[in-house]
Amino acid sequence: MPPTSGPAPTPVSPCDFVVFGGTGDLAVRKLLPALYLRDRDGQLPPETRIVAVSRAGLDEAGYRDKIRGELPRFVRAAELDPEHNGATVERFIERLTHVSLDIDDESSWPALVEQLPVSDRVRVFYLAIGPALFGRVSQRLAEHGLVTPTSRLVLEKPLGHDLASAREVNDAVGAVFEEQQIFRIDHYLGKESVQNLLVTRFANTFLEPLWNANTIDHVQITASESLGVGSRGGYYDGSGALRDMVQNHLLQLLCLVAMEPPTYVDRETVRDEKLKVLQALRPLEDGDVDRSVVAGQYAPGLVDGLAAASYRADAERPDSTTETFVAIKAEVQNWRWAGVPFYLRTGKRMDRRCSEIVIQFKAVPHAMFPGSEGAQEPNRLVIQLQPDEGMKLHMTAKEPGPGGIRLRQVSLDLSYAKTFQRRSPEAYERLLMDVVRGNPTLFMRRDEVEAAWAWVEPILERWSRPDHSPRPYPAGTSGPSAATTLIERDGRSWHESTTTA
Amino acid sequence: MPPTSGPAPTPVSPCDFVVFGGTGDLAVRKLLPALYLRDRDGQLPPETRIVAVSRAGLDEAGYRDKIRGELPRFVRAAELDPEHNGATVERFIERLTHVSLDIDDESSWPALVEQLPVSDRVRVFYLAIGPALFGRVSQRLAEHGLVTPTSRLVLEKPLGHDLASAREVNDAVGAVFEEQQIFRIDHYLGKESVQNLLVTRFANTFLEPLWNANTIDHVQITASESLGVGSRGGYYDGSGALRDMVQNHLLQLLCLVAMEPPTYVDRETVRDEKLKVLQALRPLEDGDVDRSVVAGQYAPGLVDGLAAASYRADAERPDSTTETFVAIKAEVQNWRWAGVPFYLRTGKRMDRRCSEIVIQFKAVPHAMFPGSEGAQEPNRLVIQLQPDEGMKLHMTAKEPGPGGIRLRQVSLDLSYAKTFQRRSPEAYERLLMDVVRGNPTLFMRRDEVEAAWAWVEPILERWSRPDHSPRPYPAGTSGPSAATTLIERDGRSWHESTTTA
Repeated sequence: MPPTSGPAPTPVSPCDFVVFGGTGDLAVRKLLPALYLRDRDGQLPPETRIVAVSRAGLDEAGYRDKIRGELPRFVRAAELDPEHNGATVERFIERLTHVSLDIDDESSWPALVEQLPVSDRVRVFYLAIGPALFGRVSQRLAEHGLVTPTSRLVLEKPLGHDLASAREVNDAVGAVFEEQQIFRIDHYLGKESVQNLLVTRFANTFLEPLWNANTIDHVQITASESLGVGSRGGYYDGSGALRDMVQNHLLQLLCLVAMEPPTYVDRETVRDEKLKVLQALRPLEDGDVDRSVVAGQYAPGLVDGLAAASYRADAERPDSTTETFVAIKAEVQNWRWAGVPFYLRTGKRMDRRCSEIVIQFKAVPHAMFPGSEGAQEPNRLVIQLQPDEGMKLHMTAKEPGPGGIRLRQVSLDLSYAKTFQRRSPEAYERLLMDVVRGNPTLFMRRDEVEAAWAWVEPILERWSRPDHSPRPYPAGTSGPSAATTLIERDGRSWHESTTTA
Repeated sequence: MPPTSGPAPTPVSPCDFVVFGGTGDLAVRKLLPALYLRDRDGQLPPETRIVAVSRAGLDEAGYRDKIRGELPRFVRAAELDPEHNGATVERFIERLTHVSLDIDDESSWPALVEQLPVSDRVRVFYLAIGPALFGRVSQRLAEHGLVTPTSRLVLEKPLGHDLASAREVNDAVGAVFEEQQIFRIDHYLGKESVQNLLVTRFANTFLEPLWNANTIDHVQITASESLGVGSRGGYYDGSGALRDMVQNHLLQLLCLVAMEPPTYVDRETVRDEKLKVLQALRPLEDGDVDRSVVAGQYAPGLVDGLAAASYRADAERPDSTTETFVAIKAEVQNWRWAGVPFYLRTGKRMDRRCSEIVIQFKAVPHAMFPGSEGAQEPNRLVIQLQPDEGMKLHMTAKEPGPGGIRLRQVSLDLSYAKTFQRRSPEAYERLLMDVVRGNPTLFMRRDEVEAAWAWVEPILERWSRPDHSPRPYPAGTSGPSAATTLIERDGRSWHESTTTA
């Protein structure tokens, strides 16, 4: 039996998915595999349709052939339901159709209109295309009468490259869609362990009394990759780690860690609370950026024993000053978190692939066990997001033995894979279903996106000046030494996860 | 390689162990095996001697033969160091000698005196004999000049059968030994998991903010056995579960859970704090005993599928009103614990062998996950003492899946055996070494013992009246239904451990 995603899911309403960029990387690698898996598990009603839109001159049969060929590359064999001789895959393939469309060519639109007769079915427009097109596509959809009250728009990052451009994108799509129709995806929020962070905090009583400046020394949020930019160099060079990772993923994780308990998890209240955190971030003044933010760019190095090229070589930009690494010391200015730094860190070509949130508790106020000072490390709660989802509470226990009381570090463990004995769904599976259900909790609201941009704006501004350039670090290391200094001058150090790439 | 007890232990000072009752059950089953294991692990210096004292007319060779034969019955084969062809056992056997002595026969004492020349070595007098003899033996030891400043006296329970008799025993031994020379053993305190409770509470920061009436709903302390009284019926019938288990073990565990942080763990401060807890126990007035205490006595039943006799049959006391089960609701009257009941429970012939401490946290103050009320159980920290030592933090996590947020109970686990991959030493091993080291932390001080007796005194008094008799419960069950009522009328229930006998 293939591993399932758990208890039989509740089917969503019948829906038309309209995927702009239907032959692109995101659609082929992520969206269609996610929809396939939801279909396989019985969550998509029979009349659900998927309309891929692209400029590729494909007919329905051609597109179906393409996806039939691609699906096994991005879905594990066991999930393809081999027991049914591919019948489950075929059932999914038959939902697909393709419309060839050039956004700016009016004559190509009727083909799409024809696929979408007037209906009160949920209609999801997924824009897996560049953000420069978000406004225009929305406008055309409206002009052709395709935007119904039950339509939803899904936007992928990057949502702008600074506050002004983010506002432009939001204004443009906002001219056509109501805010509650717009779903800005941050796939980090679709991870099981990120949602479990909400459950851990708010369906248990043992964390809330600890979750504040009285008990917590600091928080670390790390998202490191061992890969370089690869073939994405062109896109990446115009963006960099701050825009690509910090403004969205890392700040979103910070919000989930820092936010006050919301009233409900399935309404606007979660986003209200996250917004409050973003608004409570201490603004970075000019000098603060140099003091509290470190930019890095990977230089040649050694990854897994093999020589690895520099970012500049990978991206074919010999003079690039784009950062592939960022470390930030952030502060949340409210009663709960006063004096508790949040250290954020992300980078490419680092020594390991690891996404995790570390809650570092304060040391015991008084060491009562004689001669045990060294063994008595402060407690740490580590929430692992990648590569394996789980949670560890590092604590001190007595080393068994008849001698005096010797202390040893142990951990209370929760491994998702071991505990639940089943596949955790991919982030997109959950997020796509939430779109159909109209549940916006795990998506970014306009005001959140803009508050996040507003907070990183001084960093962008400072880095745009000619005297800035990122600090080089050898590929395969933990980043530039300035990032170590950033935390060590506070008498702290980065958590070295035992998780390896 | 035989499993060791961990890092090489620090040897104690050379010492003479003088074991009164040297051929008795306790000596043969527990004390000599414990000393052997400490010897094997290198904790006893070469000149250490063990002088067994008893009325058995054995010479040294005869006693050594006896122990050589008995040791393999009470030490696991792997611990007997088969690699060395028994050389480790022989080394231990050669420490042994035996003195035949009748306490009241003056002519038999010189043989013991001869074995104990004047010395400043640590001298441990272990009285593995009835408490009625404690005073007389102490007196004789003094009369024969055997009590040196570095002598220590170890007493086994029962220390009296009520407050007055406990005071008598304490007065009698106190006339010869200083209080700091007297080590009253409670073998529960020698368990690794009990000592780990101290470490867990005081070498970690995450529990202290939770460890009070704001967060904790109630505490349960259970020590259940599946066995009956067996051949101990004679002794047991004069004692009962209250004296045998509650007055010492259960109240000691309660103290360790409830006490304030001491200044140091290796001085009098731990005992000072435990005493404060005993003094803070709400005194039981007359009516309180009937309301807050349940006595039970096992009736015929089914244990492991086999018919089991009643206590009265086992003990051959057809009219006995001795209790084999006690459940108590106790309260600690201080700021930390106001309004947090401590439910204590112990019994013989119950459905499982299980000693554990359960810290039951309060429920979340507000359920923010829709439709999840049922799945959201309050957190529970379970400290397992028997049969397997470990710790579990029961919490709520998100069930993986792309549906709404479904909750599930999971646990963060610490198994001593799995974590440390080695044998935990037996309680007596640690306690005997602590006696030699002169570390009194894990022993009961006179004032503690008497405070505990003072607290149970109203129960003894009430039960001595003719209108009292224990409630029968079938062997192999969880005790009389009145014990269930005791906790359920407070809207709570006994924790059903998943640990089985």
